[in-house]
Amino acid sequence: MHTWLLPEYIADILPATARQVESAKARMLELYRTYGYELVSPPLIEYTEALLTHADPALDMRTFKLDDQLTGRQLGLRADITPQVARIDAHLLAHRDGATRLCYAGSIVHTRPTGLTRSREPLQLGAELYGCYGLAADLEVIDLMLSSLAQVGVNDVTLDLGHLGLYRALVREAQLDGDFEHELFSAIQSKDTSTVAALTVDVHEPFRSAFRHLTELYGPDAVRRARTSLPGLPAIRAALDDLERVAAAFAGRARVTFDLTELRGTHYHTGLMFAAYAEGWAEELARGGRYDNVGRRFGRARPATGFSLDLRDLIRILPQQNPSKGIRLAADDLPQLAEEAARLRKAGEVVVIDYLHESAEALHCDRALTLIDGVAQLVPLPSTH
Amino acid sequence: MHTWLLPEYIADILPATARQVESAKARMLELYRTYGYELVSPPLIEYTEALLTHADPALDMRTFKLDDQLTGRQLGLRADITPQVARIDAHLLAHRDGATRLCYAGSIVHTRPTGLTRSREPLQLGAELYGCYGLAADLEVIDLMLSSLAQVGVNDVTLDLGHLGLYRALVREAQLDGDFEHELFSAIQSKDTSTVAALTVDVHEPFRSAFRHLTELYGPDAVRRARTSLPGLPAIRAALDDLERVAAAFAGRARVTFDLTELRGTHYHTGLMFAAYAEGWAEELARGGRYDNVGRRFGRARPATGFSLDLRDLIRILPQQNPSKGIRLAADDLPQLAEEAARLRKAGEVVVIDYLHESAEALHCDRALTLIDGVAQLVPLPSTH
Repeated sequence: MHTWLLPEYIADILPATARQVESAKARMLELYRTYGYELVSPPLIEYTEALLTHADPALDMRTFKLDDQLTGRQLGLRADITPQVARIDAHLLAHRDGATRLCYAGSIVHTRPTGLTRSREPLQLGAELYGCYGLAADLEVIDLMLSSLAQVGVNDVTLDLGHLGLYRALVREAQLDGDFEHELFSAIQSKDTSTVAALTVDVHEPFRSAFRHLTELYGPDAVRRARTSLPGLPAIRAALDDLERVAAAFAGRARVTFDLTELRGTHYHTGLMFAAYAEGWAEELARGGRYDNVGRRFGRARPATGFSLDLRDLIRILPQQNPSKGIRLAADDLPQLAEEAARLRKAGEVVVIDYLHESAEALHCDRALTLIDGVAQLVPLPSTH
Repeated sequence: MHTWLLPEYIADILPATARQVESAKARMLELYRTYGYELVSPPLIEYTEALLTHADPALDMRTFKLDDQLTGRQLGLRADITPQVARIDAHLLAHRDGATRLCYAGSIVHTRPTGLTRSREPLQLGAELYGCYGLAADLEVIDLMLSSLAQVGVNDVTLDLGHLGLYRALVREAQLDGDFEHELFSAIQSKDTSTVAALTVDVHEPFRSAFRHLTELYGPDAVRRARTSLPGLPAIRAALDDLERVAAAFAGRARVTFDLTELRGTHYHTGLMFAAYAEGWAEELARGGRYDNVGRRFGRARPATGFSLDLRDLIRILPQQNPSKGIRLAADDLPQLAEEAARLRKAGEVVVIDYLHESAEALHCDRALTLIDGVAQLVPLPSTH
């Protein structure tokens, strides 16, 4: 086995891409700053019980476990940053009782990839808005999600909307018990209509039909169809109204569609959910939703809405940028030209000191800084092929 | 045990500091770009044998081990980025045979802190120059190290210089065997003069005296003293000449001192070593040196010199910055003022939508965006206390 081989689904980010990732990250974080989002940077490792939300065995499975030599306790390598940010809002910033806006950017690690094209080390970027129940807060976060994509040149997106309130209202009103509900949730999540039909045989109407319809409620007209195929409960009407308001708000910026069967990634989600897709890419570019009370286990239940994206994944859809060419400075000339080199670098130019008499191509330079009659001059460097 | 408690020597980076870290990182990476350094971003986890250099049991101890569920093999959570960058130079960029300049910024994790004030999760930033043997390459890297510190306002530093070539030449000429040499190395490293005296009883002159003198060769005049107290071997003369050339080159930018006994952090270092210190801080701010042939285990031995720093540590010495105040936009006014808000944000202003009628303090705003006679206006927001 060669020492330079990397584990499966693990990769270096090499020069051609790394600057692009860094610059996309910087632009997104700057965007969040102008919306009033404060940056936090939680650690890569924490006690496992702080990283895992009670309800999410999938996250537990995805989390690498480590032994803490200092205490003997179990540590986890974070597989998601959202619970960490919830901890910060709930505990460290607990003296604030208004809206708290937090954003973050950092690597997470998964024991197994979440998809065939996914890395086991996503670079998770996100923004979270705590303390506001209203739909306006969700609109702010979706605006920020679409603006994040626009910031890196991705303007042509489909905004996919869902709402866990529909399913939750049906479960509540149909008075389903926990274990059964868990099975049903999985079947609906995987759009497994025959299992849903089998499971709901003994569920009374109108809920039996409602659960069966739920697996087919996707597409641009899904909300309209839901108005007739789901029972007219207040919680359901409210959720459908919210979905239509969001669709109207972003109709000018994205193709809007609905997926009311989509219950994915929802172990902490509670209401409106949204995801952005691009033509030709199966996996979503960004995803988010409402996850009220996520901070309860840290001692502080608060409304919350937010989104996140994997920048390592997103960068694959962007056109590659060619870094601008630099200026060669022969090592022998450095003593006389150090000041001029410093001035050029301060102006953003790349000045490469050449110790080995390399070609313009090898140095990635198209000009040379040189002394002509004692004066610093920039001269064009002809390409040698 | 509270779920919000973090493990010892592990901490969140909170809003007041996180932007400062991000901006310092961006400025340093931009500096490296202008010197022609390409950014790489190696993964957090790799096969353990790729992360560890054969010769460094300390790095092995510091590295958390993980089981790869996909292959059953052992993975490590990186405790140092330099070996990863060496792997990239040796393998992925092996088609280049000239100078290769690489830089990086990323978190590393240690099983135990390397010092009482150190985090177990340093944020390592560094730059490495491969392919050049000459001292000029070391000068470039030291220039970059000092410029990195100047970039974040740290100008008043002590540059501490050492050279492993002195010790290595003495060991070679005195023909010491491996195990014994290992003990002697540790004793000199810890400046343990009595152990060095005991160990060298049977070493023949002039090496016995030389090893004993070595533990005392630190301070601004150490090179001058070394000229008389160490044997005049060519390798020793060359190392001392190099030290003086480096000292002369940076005399105008830092207080230069020497520590010829300092053999620290050297499992891959081979020659000149350098560190930057600031008044009142026991630990170094940045450290580097020459580590030729580090890529040999990846199939490509190349000369190399570079430095790294822990930005999480460095940031503690910088004055805290107060983020500039923002502009409040009442949620009810958003529909009419969305365009103006977008314009202000694009210009770098923070525009905070207020859903909860919060105070100017809570929102961290000193102005409000509002409609007066149908025209968007910025009005001062008086502080309420």
